[in-house]
Parts: sequence; structure tokens; C-alpha cells
Amino acid sequence: MTSETVTKDKKEVKKEKKEKKEKKEAKEAQAAVKGASEMGISIRKDVDFAGWYQQVLTKSEMLEYYDVSGCYILRPYSYNVWKEIQNFFDAKITEMGVEDTYFPMFVSNKVLEKEKDHIEGFSPEVAWVTRAGSSDLEEPVAIRPTSETVMYPYFAKWIRSYRDLPFKVNQWNSVVRWEFKHPQPFLRTREFLWQEGHTAHLTKEEADTEVREILSLYAQVYSDLLAVPMIQGVKSDKEKFAGGLYTTTVEGYIPTTGRAIQAGTSHCLGQNFSKMFNIVVEDPDTTGKADGEAAKKLLVWQNSWGLSTRTIGVMVMVHGDDKGLVMPPRVASIQVVIVPCGLTVKTSQEDRRKVEDEVVRIEKALKKAGVKTKADLRDNYSPGFKFAHWELRGIPLRIEVGPKDLQKEQVVVVRRDNGEKSSIPTKDLENDIKNLLDTVQNDMYARAKKVRDDAIVRVDKWEDFVPTLNNKCLCLIPWCDRTECEDDIKEKSARRDQQDEPEDERAPSMGAKSLCMPFDQPTENPIVLGETKCVACGENAKHFMLFGRSY
Amino acid sequence: MTSETVTKDKKEVKKEKKEKKEKKEAKEAQAAVKGASEMGISIRKDVDFAGWYQQVLTKSEMLEYYDVSGCYILRPYSYNVWKEIQNFFDAKITEMGVEDTYFPMFVSNKVLEKEKDHIEGFSPEVAWVTRAGSSDLEEPVAIRPTSETVMYPYFAKWIRSYRDLPFKVNQWNSVVRWEFKHPQPFLRTREFLWQEGHTAHLTKEEADTEVREILSLYAQVYSDLLAVPMIQGVKSDKEKFAGGLYTTTVEGYIPTTGRAIQAGTSHCLGQNFSKMFNIVVEDPDTTGKADGEAAKKLLVWQNSWGLSTRTIGVMVMVHGDDKGLVMPPRVASIQVVIVPCGLTVKTSQEDRRKVEDEVVRIEKALKKAGVKTKADLRDNYSPGFKFAHWELRGIPLRIEVGPKDLQKEQVVVVRRDNGEKSSIPTKDLENDIKNLLDTVQNDMYARAKKVRDDAIVRVDKWEDFVPTLNNKCLCLIPWCDRTECEDDIKEKSARRDQQDEPEDERAPSMGAKSLCMPFDQPTENPIVLGETKCVACGENAKHFMLFGRSY
Repeated sequence: MTSETVTKDKKEVKKEKKEKKEKKEAKEAQAAVKGASEMGISIRKDVDFAGWYQQVLTKSEMLEYYDVSGCYILRPYSYNVWKEIQNFFDAKITEMGVEDTYFPMFVSNKVLEKEKDHIEGFSPEVAWVTRAGSSDLEEPVAIRPTSETVMYPYFAKWIRSYRDLPFKVNQWNSVVRWEFKHPQPFLRTREFLWQEGHTAHLTKEEADTEVREILSLYAQVYSDLLAVPMIQGVKSDKEKFAGGLYTTTVEGYIPTTGRAIQAGTSHCLGQNFSKMFNIVVEDPDTTGKADGEAAKKLLVWQNSWGLSTRTIGVMVMVHGDDKGLVMPPRVASIQVVIVPCGLTVKTSQEDRRKVEDEVVRIEKALKKAGVKTKADLRDNYSPGFKFAHWELRGIPLRIEVGPKDLQKEQVVVVRRDNGEKSSIPTKDLENDIKNLLDTVQNDMYARAKKVRDDAIVRVDKWEDFVPTLNNKCLCLIPWCDRTECEDDIKEKSARRDQQDEPEDERAPSMGAKSLCMPFDQPTENPIVLGETKCVACGENAKHFMLFGRSY
Repeated sequence: MTSETVTKDKKEVKKEKKEKKEKKEAKEAQAAVKGASEMGISIRKDVDFAGWYQQVLTKSEMLEYYDVSGCYILRPYSYNVWKEIQNFFDAKITEMGVEDTYFPMFVSNKVLEKEKDHIEGFSPEVAWVTRAGSSDLEEPVAIRPTSETVMYPYFAKWIRSYRDLPFKVNQWNSVVRWEFKHPQPFLRTREFLWQEGHTAHLTKEEADTEVREILSLYAQVYSDLLAVPMIQGVKSDKEKFAGGLYTTTVEGYIPTTGRAIQAGTSHCLGQNFSKMFNIVVEDPDTTGKADGEAAKKLLVWQNSWGLSTRTIGVMVMVHGDDKGLVMPPRVASIQVVIVPCGLTVKTSQEDRRKVEDEVVRIEKALKKAGVKTKADLRDNYSPGFKFAHWELRGIPLRIEVGPKDLQKEQVVVVRRDNGEKSSIPTKDLENDIKNLLDTVQNDMYARAKKVRDDAIVRVDKWEDFVPTLNNKCLCLIPWCDRTECEDDIKEKSARRDQQDEPEDERAPSMGAKSLCMPFDQPTENPIVLGETKCVACGENAKHFMLFGRSY
């Protein structure tokens, strides 16, 4: 036997092995496809977004549809995201001196109607309890759509002195807005979970500062936890909170539909509610200064701010893909799944055991290092099936361990966000995995931000406005800041002939709403007051405003 | 000057000082009384318990009365206790594999009525939403009084294989039971906060084990956090959860009224709900064993368990005194308050600053050591006023720091639970304070337990039964375990002529209910089956049962 023959034989063996491997992989891929066709996503995100969204939420076990219309079940897999948001935000506001409280869900008609603009904004959606058991209630009670009018009569009682200010409470609860528009999980539901903060301050300056602090925390929830970029700004008069002074907002962007979404709001209520509910303190500058003379009464300055489970819907819509969810590591209840691979009927019991032991060892080591890890040792499913199962659920990293990896003292790691595959030595696995999770988190944010940034288009003449919207972008325009013009823009940017179609089909033809006046105004070619004209109506422009089709 | 004179002078100086001090203390005490008469408790606990309870809750700022009857505002001071309970309990059940979830608050009539016994138990108290905005709903929806019927249709969908078991979810939410009985804060309210756990198991044994594990956690919440002893046991058939198999309970005791209180329940629902809602899995013993033959279907075994904000009411009723709340250190949001003392108009600015600096230094040191501490440096209140203020709120320890303490490198520490005063060197203050907080916690529990133990009276003849109740005790009797006898006991132990009086006045004349069959049955002079007779009816006794007037 010449050395050449030997070489050839080796080559053949290698070739055979390769063929075998390819065959096996093809088989597994097929199994995966079969598995996917049963349990996986069958609708493409870019073809039928609404259908895709529904499938992703239900098949990933985030959400279940419920037999009362407009209500949904938050399963542990999504509720856990909410818990992560709660942990982050509650710690931050506790530092700010905000205390958690709980007010009843019921509110009497008399109190609800106290602030006129406010109730006008909410009354069409208020749910009323009129009966208990088989008895009609003497006086129907409303379920809170928000708690301003629930809380503020008591603020008037508790806040007596300027020493009681600032007064800051928050509650994590659910509210009910019985909307008759087409409901959508997380985005528009009749009952939803949120937090609502309510504070009172001695001065407008203090109130202003807090409004911005809270808004910035909301932006952080999105950017740091959910890897979604936000635009911070002020709502127009038309879009502000009913009864408030001004509303600040974080606005998100859903690339697939090209629509914006109001993702959290922090309102300065001014002194409107304090006037209605008589929340006053003595002026510290006049208190006790002139004996006998009554101290001057001051109306307090109030804020309210809320962030809801809409957060979860935005995260899913922005990051999800045709395989299912893509979870940002910071809110994933499982960050890493470990799947034993390369085990066939021919694998010896010993080798199988070695691989499984290694899987368990790595699981323990990662858990100990604070990485949320799950070993998938189910013996009734193929690796391909498991891959699809965990991809559907968006687990950020998959670790594959096979007999060969064992020999090489390495594992194969696959990223969910971009599919990238790499081999990592087991030696320093904990640190490498932790770093990789950070990388995934940052990359997800950077990608979403790039897409979002590209979709914000500065529009300087009206002819470009609707085409820009139709191109799934948002329009940043010099604007006159008049409600008439805003109404007009909505009218002019809608195609009226398609209004009978269901809302999701209609999206491309919806009229544009004003989203916000971004705090971050363009510095290049800026507004020159008295010179720059409003793109929509030609009057003098006051500032840049962001417009878009919107949820 | 002889040395005698000097001695005398010294004595005189001492005497003067003493008189001065006494005068000052008397003045402070007077101020405290004056303060107390404005802000403090004016009703004695043993004279008018209901009035006392209301005053303590409102004046301590735990609770506010609300304009919808039967609903109350949980202010941060009580909500914080609930947060402590949540933290403790949620960590424990997470270890047990229970996951948090959120189901809608609304339930359709069709689903609500599915389980007959269950709905019979709840229907008189169900609140119905019949209107939204100005439109009547086609189909009224109920607000959940509990979530069995809300959840279980979905359990049937999600639980397919024995591999899906055990299935364990929990939610922290509010439920509504529109009771028409006299409401009482925390104890009987139309909306209340609780957690409700719902689990499904393959076998009765597993379900049984979990029922007891959860009950034991409830007992721990009371004993370890709230310093209140509980009796664990099983409810009679009459008192068990509507539609369930059996109910276990933790029963507390309120010494002032001599009444028992159901403080938390853990139910085994058996297979009743799984039958109604068709929650079945394939029998793992038959699955896949005989090809072609259908696997046997098994109904799952279910549990549900709930603990509510009633916890807070029990804690207040057991520990509070004529000065106000007494907070167990483990759930106190402020464990130690520091009050600068002994500062008069004659104190130099420097001495005053030194004292205040020391107060701040101690606050920082204690906080750093993990003790929840507050320095009360308000300059517009006297120490006496501050003492009363914090006693009303039940802060476990008060530290007093005066110029003399500074010299002696010590502080004065006063315990809220028993008024004990001691001097503690500042040298190792952090450790001493931590130990003292533990001592207070343990002493509070031990005292409550002693009182409770003394109030459980074994009664062996009927003639002693009602006098024992009237003596504010609970009766432990050999019992036949028959519902007819239970009804009879209630009847015989009530004084019917006083039924028109308001419930709280009526308490001493209420009929006794069965509380539970304690797991801990007496070993001395035990039941001999077939020999020992039921104390109430003379039939054969089956076990000891605890009876009492009850909330």
C-alpha cells in the first residue's frame, strides 16, 4: 500500500463522513421545517403583518386570545418582560422619592365628571358597573380609565402645607378603556396594565423638571431594556392629554408598516386639576410673616405619567422576524438555551452521557454566573425541532454541544438576532457569553436605530409629504403649530376612498397625525422665525414637527 | 468654703437640674398629649375597637376612606407592607416553579356559570358591567370575584400532555366581591388586592403536597413577617371553597374581640373543575404502549390558593395599641427614627449643630448597615410631638440623641412594642440595633402567641361552650363532623334577641362557626373513635374541631 492510496482512502473516508453529515443536517433541517410548519410561524412579516403579529404572540406563548373582545391573557412569557420593566422603573422612581400606593378601580360619576375637558376625552370609553348580583346599583360606578379624578380629591385632603410638597405617588394597576376601534394585543386593549404616577409640586419649574426626568426614564426602558430607539418630544395641543397643560411623549417607529407609535407619555397638568379639586397650600413666602393676615393660597402644579404593556407589543413588532420573536437579552427570561447535538442512534451510551453531562455542567456554570440559562434535554425531540422551538421564542443565544465539541473543548454558539454562528472555547465561556449577550443587546438597538433614523425624512415641500408617508417614512417638517393646519394635514394625507377596508389594510392610506415636536430640533438649515414657512399651509413656521401615520 | 458647703452646692445644683429636667419632661409630655389630642388616637382599643381601628388606620396614614362604599385607598404606608409580603412570597413560589401571569378582569356570563356550586357561592356578589360610554353592552360582563372560571378554559387548551404538568401560575391582582354586609378596611372590602395561584397536577398526592406547602408559606408570612401566630387546619365541608374538594386555612385570632379570622386559604379543587372544563392529559402509563389503541385520558388535579391584603388588617388589630400602630420590624418601611432631644433655647448653636450632626451620622451608618432609618430633623416640632407622631405610626425603635448622650458616647433607645428604654453605646450601634430589631420582632410574635394560646380552650361539655366564647376564647371540641351539627352549634351559640344591633356591637352574641380541624390535634386525652362523643350533639366524635366567633 503506497502512501498515496492511504491518502486517498483518508480522503474518501472524509468525503463519506462529509456526505453523511450533510445528509443528517438536511434531514434535521427538514424535520425543523416540518416542526415549524406545525408549531412555527407560517405567515411572513412583510406580507401580512397583522397575521404575523398574532401568530408570533400566540405561538411563542406570550399571549392568548380571550373570549371577551379586546381583552387578552398575558402568559408568563410576556408577563416576565413586564416584571423586568417594573423592576427597572420602580427602582428609579423610588430613588426620586415616589411611593407606591393603590386607589380603588371604581369611581363615582360625580367625581369622574369634575374636570370637563378630561371627562370629554374619556367618557365614550368608560365602562360602567350598574348591577351587583341581581340588584341594580343605586348609583352606577365607573371603572377608572385613568386615576386623575380618582386621586385628586384626596390630594386636596392630604396636601395642606408646602412642607407636604413635592408629593409623589405611583401605582401599578390595570385600567379599562372600552374602545370600539379594532383591538390589537398590547397596542389597543380594553383592559391594560400600566403604571400611573401622580405628583404635586410647589413650582412649575419643579414640575417641568420631573416631566422630563420621567420621559427620559421611559426612553431608557425602551432603549436599554427593549433595544428600541425613541424620539422624545412634546405633543401638539390637539394630541395632548385631556385636561392637561402639555404632554411629552416617547414615539417609536414600526418599520414594517412605517407607522409611528406613541409609546409612553409624561404630562404636566399645570394647575387645572388643582383648581378643580382645590389642591392648595399656603405660600411659604407669606406664611407666618404677617400675624393675623391670612397666608396666600397657592394652587399646586401637577404631573401625571404612564407607561403600559404596549411596551411589549412595540418590542415584538420591531425585533420579531419570520422565525418568531427576537428577545433583547436584558428582558429575556431565558437568555441562553443549550441543546445537545450530533447524537445519533450510533452514538455510544457513554458518549451520549458525556455530552449531556457537559450540557448540564455548562448550564450550572452559566446560571452561577448570572446568565438565565436552560438546558433542553428533552429526549423526544430532535435538535432541529428544538432549534425551531427556541427560535420561535426568540432566545438570544443557542449553545450547541456535540461529541466533537467536547473533544475540541469548545461549543458552537448561534445568535438569534442575526443567525451568526461561532465556536467558543469552554475555558472562559461564562465571560464570553456575557459579553456576547451585551453585544447582541447593543447590536439589536443599533440596527433598530439605523432603520428608524433612515425613516425620519426631512420634508421641505408639501408635494413630498404623502409620497414620503407612502414610502413608510415619518415626515419632519417646519410647522406653524396650528390645530387647523394639523386637521388639514390629516385630511390631505388620507385616501378617503379606502375607508371601508379593515384598519390594518387601510394603514397605508390613513391620514398623518402630528407625533411630536422633537426636543432634538434639526440644527442644519434651521427654522428662521418669520422667514421659514409651514410646509403644509405656508404660514410662518414655528418649529420642526414630526408627522406620520400612527397607531 | 468648707468641703461640706461645696458638696451641698453640688447637691443643690443637681437638684435644680433634676427639677428643671422634670419640668421640661412634664412640659414635653403635655405637648405630646396636646399633639396627640389633635393628631393622635382618642379612642381606646378595649373600649371601642371598631372606632379605634378606623382611627389608627387613617391617622397613621395607612388608609383613607373612599367615596365608593366598601372601597378604600391603600396609602404608601400600608401598601409597603403588601410589597414586603409580595417580595417574600413571590420568591418562595418562584422557587417552587410557579410563574406570574395576568388574566383579564372581565369574564363572560357563559364561562362564569360553568361550574354550578362555584357560581352559587359567588353570584350574589358579582359586579356586572352593562354599559360602555353611553352604549349598553350586548352581553354584560362580570368582574372576576376570583379567577377559576376565567383561567380554566385556557388550561384545557394549554395542558395537552402529562409532560405539561405540573402547570403552575399565579397572579397579583385585585378582585371584586360586591358584598352587602358591613364593610371593614382590609377585612371585608368590595375590591381587594391578593395573589391567586392556580396549579394543575398529574396526581392527587402532588396536589395535596402543594396545598400544604402553600399553606405553610401563608403561615410564615404571618409568623415571620407580621409576627402573628396562625393555626393551620382543614375547613369543614360547610366552610370549604365553593366547588372545591377541600380547603386548608390559616386562622388568626383577634384578642380584643375574641374573634377568629380566616387569614389565607389553600384549596385542593380535586377533579371537579377539570371535569367541567375538560382539562385532561393522556395517561403516561398507557401513552404509546399499545399502538393503535387510544391512550387513557386522565383528569388533572387542581389547586388554587389566595392571600389578600387582609394580612395588613390582622397585623394592625393584633399589635396596635392605644398610641396607634405597632409595626413588626420586618415589614416596617421605617424601622428606626432618630430624634434630636434636650435642645432648648439656651443650647448654643454649636451644641445644637453637634447633636444634629450626630443624628445625621447615625442615620447614615444605620442605613449603610441595611436598617431602614429616618432622622426627624424638623425644626417646627418639639421632641414630644415627634415621639407621638412616630409612635402613632408604630416605628419599632426610637433613638434619642441629646448633648449629654454625645458626651457619654451613647444614645437612648426606646422600643415601641413595650416602651422599654435603654442606653446603647454608639461604638457598635449598628449591630446592637439590628439585634434589638430582631428581639422586638421575636418578642412581638411570642407575646401574640402567648395570648392566642391562652385563648384556645379545650371544651369537653356543652355547658362550657358559650361561656368560653363569651370569655373571648375559641373552643376546641371533639366533634362529629356533620353539617347539621355545625348549623346547630351556630344557632345555639347566638343570642337572637340582639340581631338588630350593628355587627360590631353584635359580635359578642354572634353564633360560632367552625374554624378548622387543626392539623395539630391534641395528644393529651385524645379522641377514641366510637367512644368519645361530640360535645355539641352527643354523636360519635371524629376529631377535634376549633370553633369560634369569627370575622
